[in-house]
Amino acid sequence: MLTLLCENRSFGGLHRRYRHTSAVLGCEMSLAVYLPPQALSGAAVPALWWLSGLTCTEETFMQKAGAQRLAASLGLALVAPDTSPRGPQVPTDPDGAWDFGHGAGFYLDASEAPWATHYRMHTYVVRELPDLLEAELPLNGRHGISGHSMGGHGALVCALRNPGRYLSVSAFAPITRPSTCPWGEKAFSRYLGSDPSPWAAWDATLLIPGALERLPLLVDQGSADPFLEDQLRPGELAAAAEAAGHPLQLRYQESYDHSYYFIASFIDDHLRHHAAALLV
Amino acid sequence: MLTLLCENRSFGGLHRRYRHTSAVLGCEMSLAVYLPPQALSGAAVPALWWLSGLTCTEETFMQKAGAQRLAASLGLALVAPDTSPRGPQVPTDPDGAWDFGHGAGFYLDASEAPWATHYRMHTYVVRELPDLLEAELPLNGRHGISGHSMGGHGALVCALRNPGRYLSVSAFAPITRPSTCPWGEKAFSRYLGSDPSPWAAWDATLLIPGALERLPLLVDQGSADPFLEDQLRPGELAAAAEAAGHPLQLRYQESYDHSYYFIASFIDDHLRHHAAALLV
Repeated sequence: MLTLLCENRSFGGLHRRYRHTSAVLGCEMSLAVYLPPQALSGAAVPALWWLSGLTCTEETFMQKAGAQRLAASLGLALVAPDTSPRGPQVPTDPDGAWDFGHGAGFYLDASEAPWATHYRMHTYVVRELPDLLEAELPLNGRHGISGHSMGGHGALVCALRNPGRYLSVSAFAPITRPSTCPWGEKAFSRYLGSDPSPWAAWDATLLIPGALERLPLLVDQGSADPFLEDQLRPGELAAAAEAAGHPLQLRYQESYDHSYYFIASFIDDHLRHHAAALLV
Repeated sequence: MLTLLCENRSFGGLHRRYRHTSAVLGCEMSLAVYLPPQALSGAAVPALWWLSGLTCTEETFMQKAGAQRLAASLGLALVAPDTSPRGPQVPTDPDGAWDFGHGAGFYLDASEAPWATHYRMHTYVVRELPDLLEAELPLNGRHGISGHSMGGHGALVCALRNPGRYLSVSAFAPITRPSTCPWGEKAFSRYLGSDPSPWAAWDATLLIPGALERLPLLVDQGSADPFLEDQLRPGELAAAAEAAGHPLQLRYQESYDHSYYFIASFIDDHLRHHAAALLV
């Protein structure tokens, strides 16, 4: 059951923050939803899910991306979950690192103690939260998914692992090959264990060859992103997509970095990409 | 001299944060500037100044208002100063209140000790900072001014006190009658002294009758703003404008509150209002 925390009128629709108890994660979670004007006048609308990056919360995208203007015009709901389980009972990085634990759930289901109890963001995002929102909000069951950095990884993996679940997918500066980049290695070796064999099931580049559905991928990547070479490596995703015949539009945006100014600059393109699949 | 702190490509232009030493304020100040694409290809462009509200910094508007998309298209620079002098040498509220001192400079020139030494935001915003930016950035000397809440008060007062300085002015949910509202009384009685006679020179509603220039005012106010009755009171501004024959478009926006979601929803209207005066 959703408990309303706050509500703001926005572009004729409503931005809301909710809190609820997640059985999957074993903690209280906050999330943010934007309902376009169409949803306030009786229509059920499609939902674009947004998965945020490291250190972000459910508030970041809603405050900084400038997505609500066009979402209102198109009639798309926006859904922004938090980036990890939270709370005093949820273990986190013992050194307080910003790239593991709280704020860094990597949208996977952990298999290793002590993480496996709470860190099940994949099931939360793909199953529990959609079921809850569809029961309580005017959504029509049509879902797209996007995200940024760690959340771009999450969006690609959610779509590739769950054929039929999403009608559209895109990503901004995604971690495309987490099995072999520092952020991913740190997270996967703890959440999934030091044996890397199960890591492939959470790595977009490695999921491409066996994907059961060839959902077109739209990926924007800033050419001046400081994480491009060490962490993000979209070239490996592109090579895998080309080899598998998986449709991918990878756009390098000249001089753009990793910030929400980059996201805001191109979010309208992504909204239209999703709207083309979600609105019938 | 401006020192560049960071730079982000945004909508084909550049968002930048600078730091500089303010002689007027006697401290180091940060500010944010958005330069539209036109300014990067050799053109000098007009500037829309944005004065933020209580507790905000130079970052708030740039991150949350969604203004850069249309500013890029129109060819307007955006300038966002901080909301007060800052630093260990700058006195602030002894109880750490959020509505006085740091983050709450009220865009006036204080007359009372210990505030008068540093709290000279009016002269900083109207003279020192424009002179500096015009010397170092591709600006063409045409200025508009807007702001939110305390900054909406600041925008109206800056325009009303300095005929000819600004070609356009607007405000979101401004404090229109600071002399008689709790936020204003607290700030004015300290910055300007307990004798209220000099307060009128910093009160938009009281400046209207004697204004030497009838610059049209555009004011948006959310009808669900929790501060509407106690602090903002645009009805008093409207009465003064009507009595003086000062052009004012006061729009009550149904169900909107005091947040940046409200600002984002109507910022495009304000950008167009300013562009009509600033672009020739």
